[in-house]
Amino acid sequence: MKEMKPFRELIDFETAKRIVMDNTRVMEKTEKVALRESAGRVLAVSLRAKIDVPGFRRGAMDGYAVIAEDTFGTTRTAPGHLRLMGKIFAGMKPDFRVESGNCAQISTGAPMPDGADAVVMVEETSLAGDTVSIYKPVYPGAHVSKKDSDISLGTEILTVGTLITPPITGVLAALGMDTVEVYSRPKVIIFPTGDEIVSPGDELDYGKVYDINSFTMANLLGEAGAELTVSGITGDSMDELKDCMDRCAGYDYALFSGGSSVGEKDLLHDVLSGKGEVIFHGIALKPGKPTLCGRIGETLVFGMPGYPTSCLSNSYVILLPSVRKMARLPWKVRQEEMILARKVVSTIGRHQLFSVKVEDGVAHPAFKESGAITSMSLASGYVEIPANVEYVEEGSTVVVNYY
Amino acid sequence: MKEMKPFRELIDFETAKRIVMDNTRVMEKTEKVALRESAGRVLAVSLRAKIDVPGFRRGAMDGYAVIAEDTFGTTRTAPGHLRLMGKIFAGMKPDFRVESGNCAQISTGAPMPDGADAVVMVEETSLAGDTVSIYKPVYPGAHVSKKDSDISLGTEILTVGTLITPPITGVLAALGMDTVEVYSRPKVIIFPTGDEIVSPGDELDYGKVYDINSFTMANLLGEAGAELTVSGITGDSMDELKDCMDRCAGYDYALFSGGSSVGEKDLLHDVLSGKGEVIFHGIALKPGKPTLCGRIGETLVFGMPGYPTSCLSNSYVILLPSVRKMARLPWKVRQEEMILARKVVSTIGRHQLFSVKVEDGVAHPAFKESGAITSMSLASGYVEIPANVEYVEEGSTVVVNYY
Repeated sequence: MKEMKPFRELIDFETAKRIVMDNTRVMEKTEKVALRESAGRVLAVSLRAKIDVPGFRRGAMDGYAVIAEDTFGTTRTAPGHLRLMGKIFAGMKPDFRVESGNCAQISTGAPMPDGADAVVMVEETSLAGDTVSIYKPVYPGAHVSKKDSDISLGTEILTVGTLITPPITGVLAALGMDTVEVYSRPKVIIFPTGDEIVSPGDELDYGKVYDINSFTMANLLGEAGAELTVSGITGDSMDELKDCMDRCAGYDYALFSGGSSVGEKDLLHDVLSGKGEVIFHGIALKPGKPTLCGRIGETLVFGMPGYPTSCLSNSYVILLPSVRKMARLPWKVRQEEMILARKVVSTIGRHQLFSVKVEDGVAHPAFKESGAITSMSLASGYVEIPANVEYVEEGSTVVVNYY
Repeated sequence: MKEMKPFRELIDFETAKRIVMDNTRVMEKTEKVALRESAGRVLAVSLRAKIDVPGFRRGAMDGYAVIAEDTFGTTRTAPGHLRLMGKIFAGMKPDFRVESGNCAQISTGAPMPDGADAVVMVEETSLAGDTVSIYKPVYPGAHVSKKDSDISLGTEILTVGTLITPPITGVLAALGMDTVEVYSRPKVIIFPTGDEIVSPGDELDYGKVYDINSFTMANLLGEAGAELTVSGITGDSMDELKDCMDRCAGYDYALFSGGSSVGEKDLLHDVLSGKGEVIFHGIALKPGKPTLCGRIGETLVFGMPGYPTSCLSNSYVILLPSVRKMARLPWKVRQEEMILARKVVSTIGRHQLFSVKVEDGVAHPAFKESGAITSMSLASGYVEIPANVEYVEEGSTVVVNYY
């Protein structure tokens, strides 16, 4: 029978992060999605415009399409007079040509009639019968958008890796695309692990706690563009864990929410060694020490700490950057410098992530204990304390990383 | 036959924003959603904990549950010796009591056995047969989490209006909730409007353009927590617009993507006047002047400018704050001060939103024309130029509002 044993060797936090990022490939798989479903996805192809946008010369103001020369010299007291030939609304194809002395009423966005080379704004005109009075000269090209003024046929308009934001959606729509090729989202399976874990909604017997980690991780990684599958609760047995590992194929990440410590029942390390490869086990990090990282084939496997704050905190600092890298999503932590309201004591040799609540521009320590989810739910973000720092004095300037 | 006519009176941008916000109620309707679906929603109830978390006293480290007094005076060279009574794993209920001279192996998170008042970390012990050697004293309470150390029964743990972030999901799970009462999402219906509009994917005849605005608005407002319905394309006729207005009931917002200008075919103002109430028509804003705001019963109705940049820009500065207010979502624009790379000329009397691209920490003007979606797709955000400013000099410090 195996004994409890301490971690053989902890690796430092920076090393752990680097190893995880080095082991994170970027997504190569792509899929076609409807433009309506493409918000937040990442373009998997470069796009060359197959049409001009607009595909025709158009009026850029409501007014009258004229030959600019016909307006030269006009003033409010000595207006020019042009004969109204017709009206062109947006979406219409003009079936006449504007000759000198004539004009056509035109709506914003409507095609310019042949012959006309400028638009006089309606505000600078008046209409009586079919005579339009022009109060102000315009230069050739005034209030006219030329064909391809927005996008020219053949231009490389969007490049691989572009994040589909609202304006980018607009460009894709302008080009007439109703589907778009994007990178597939990282597929993540979460195995809530532990004999003590019960699903929210179920009865809680003595000694049991509700499954928290599968919910916090799914929420966080879902926002980061992952496609989530959450398994049923898995007990602490070799057989159950082996079954889970056998189900990892096809997923980019398999996350075990607990069972990565070194207690006798923390079997994950041994099962993973048998099924795949352990990359590291144990980080000199507080909270978050009992973290296991490995792989089975193409699947990155993480044994997360069972304690809710340790699990979620590590999800922010280790899983999130990895998933976003794989998803090809741009990202940086939102940071702000501020004053620390109260002294924080750390542990030499362990990198510490200390929860703080920001109030009135000051960082107040908010950490309770790694078993307490309220350590994070009441916090705004965290401050990092390097492994070689023993304490941070009240009044020091710290960098808050927002959750 | 109606004539084209200029806007009667433009209202200034700040007034328009204030009117829209004043007319935006906050959501009162609530709904129950599964905890797994609750990310990003807003809590509609205050929650008082119905259980203690944890519901039992537990070990906070892997090690041995002891009576602290039994460890006093122990050292690595003169260890104490305790008899191992049993093992307690997480999720088990201990069925024995620890008496002086005895101890129990305990896993992190497992219930403390009666009698024991501290845990000695496994690192400070060794085991031979059923004898545990203790190398270091512990004080009473060491590495023990008391019952309710995270959350106490009866505490108001979450308040109405809390945004459900990953840590908050964790609190809800910890309390055993598998469903949660949240505010309903604002319901938005978009009517792509205009005889010139064609759906992406369809054939584009001369004088036609693809529908851009329903895509950009849906993408933006979807991210802001709105529940979107996009109607089929509506032509520029009284009857079609009336039909649309009759379908607004039950929606919080009805957005017409075009048809708010004053061209002869821009009938929206008249139809809205008949069906409901026009609040304002025309903003002294560039781009974005031809914007119509009104209401039909409880539904806020917007006639958005037809031009893509005008429409999306107004969606950012007017619709987005309104929808987020209704959804009760906290929000502020992400802003940064930087140097303007090139002089920008504005128009006295009109508030201007000028697209800029941020490169190397400098804001480069990126505006093309309001008809061009590339004005925004190539930009990082916008700079505001107040109505009474004629130009902003190269090298000035400006505030960039990120999209």
